[in-house]
Amino acid sequence: MFTEDQLTDDKFLCGRLRLWQPAQGYRAATDPVLLAAACPAEAGDRVLDLGCGAGAAALCLAARVPDLVLAGLELQAVYADLARRNAARNGVTLEVVEGDLRQMPTALRRDFDHVISNPPYYPGGGTPSPLPGRALAMQIDATPLALWVEVAARRLRPGGWLTMITGADALPDLLGALGKLGSASVLPLAPRTGRPAKRVILRARKGGKAPFRLLAPFVIHEGAEHTGDRESYTPAANQVLRRGGDLSAQFG
Amino acid sequence: MFTEDQLTDDKFLCGRLRLWQPAQGYRAATDPVLLAAACPAEAGDRVLDLGCGAGAAALCLAARVPDLVLAGLELQAVYADLARRNAARNGVTLEVVEGDLRQMPTALRRDFDHVISNPPYYPGGGTPSPLPGRALAMQIDATPLALWVEVAARRLRPGGWLTMITGADALPDLLGALGKLGSASVLPLAPRTGRPAKRVILRARKGGKAPFRLLAPFVIHEGAEHTGDRESYTPAANQVLRRGGDLSAQFG
Repeated sequence: MFTEDQLTDDKFLCGRLRLWQPAQGYRAATDPVLLAAACPAEAGDRVLDLGCGAGAAALCLAARVPDLVLAGLELQAVYADLARRNAARNGVTLEVVEGDLRQMPTALRRDFDHVISNPPYYPGGGTPSPLPGRALAMQIDATPLALWVEVAARRLRPGGWLTMITGADALPDLLGALGKLGSASVLPLAPRTGRPAKRVILRARKGGKAPFRLLAPFVIHEGAEHTGDRESYTPAANQVLRRGGDLSAQFG
Repeated sequence: MFTEDQLTDDKFLCGRLRLWQPAQGYRAATDPVLLAAACPAEAGDRVLDLGCGAGAAALCLAARVPDLVLAGLELQAVYADLARRNAARNGVTLEVVEGDLRQMPTALRRDFDHVISNPPYYPGGGTPSPLPGRALAMQIDATPLALWVEVAARRLRPGGWLTMITGADALPDLLGALGKLGSASVLPLAPRTGRPAKRVILRARKGGKAPFRLLAPFVIHEGAEHTGDRESYTPAANQVLRRGGDLSAQFG
């Protein structure tokens, strides 16, 4: 387990949410906030966060949608422990189960209305970091993206939704793995207007029959270049990242 | 063969190119122009247009890049005939071979530097039109998109480029079929800013190793709505569709 001096105390959604995160290793930033904002969960829905880390996405979702039945699967004991502490700290009930998605723990072998996931991901396919937590969390080779999608689909009830955020360079793997998921939409996340997408959010429905849609990009920062210390979010990004708004308008 | 009264005489690239097209049935519009603009061919390159129809894409490409060695495969005799007439009329040498991509004619069993393709495509997966030419040209079920990509890849030399335009809803099929094609980029084509992409252009290289890129959308029309009879192209679309410019800036 992490000791306090190995942790930082981070604010999400303008401080509505406070999370302990490891000072070194994988640290959640905007990805789980965007992921939670894209999930079309409604009050009372059962939600599984596949690879929940320190719980950022599940807790962001709980901050927007009331009365969810939240569960998380996490491979690493230290992150599972943090997720539990973070949930308690924010007054959210989150059932965190430690385990490997290749052998789904019995406790999670049930149906969910939604699966959300920010799979560990190593941009550009380089070598993993030497930090053990980071290495595990970022090493995509360990579990191919297709397996994340397949396992997520298996946990969904018919008509349930998968919402997943990945690097844009993983889009071929992601779309190649849809299988029984249909009615898929991809929301490109572009750092600035006119730039290639860095990340993408996929939403797809188990048994869905609607045609695939490639949506207009969601632009994170204003202006053509990064200027100065302070990043300037677009109004739409600000609404999601600071004010806890959802991305339903983008998904139409 | 079509008789003159079954044809229209259409201007492309502000009249730099004139094409006979069937008055009814599949008619090229902006797709082949955008396809040609996205192909990174250079003077002297060997180019195959897979499913060349009346020759629009190949002839647009010839209007921009000199000294290409151009060939086209076309399933339907009436379109192959039109492609030959259109090539001759515009003073372009285009070897048009009639045949089925599932049994590549011997004449085209050679290497190309580029394959371009605007595969027949039925948007939304509905039923084909009762017009026989249109039905054949638009019936995707007849030849799955994956087969178009596979056959194209087989005709490319190592390092050669495939450039393909399809409906955006076909993106999962397209990216699922890349196989030995790498360094892929997708350019979304959006009718207007903020709208989902209707069409996409894929560029991919045989044996390429660069990460996949999802590019910023190329926006065709100005304004938020269609107003009045005359469509107003964005300056960038005007440069490509009327002035014969290329899309190299978009692909970076």
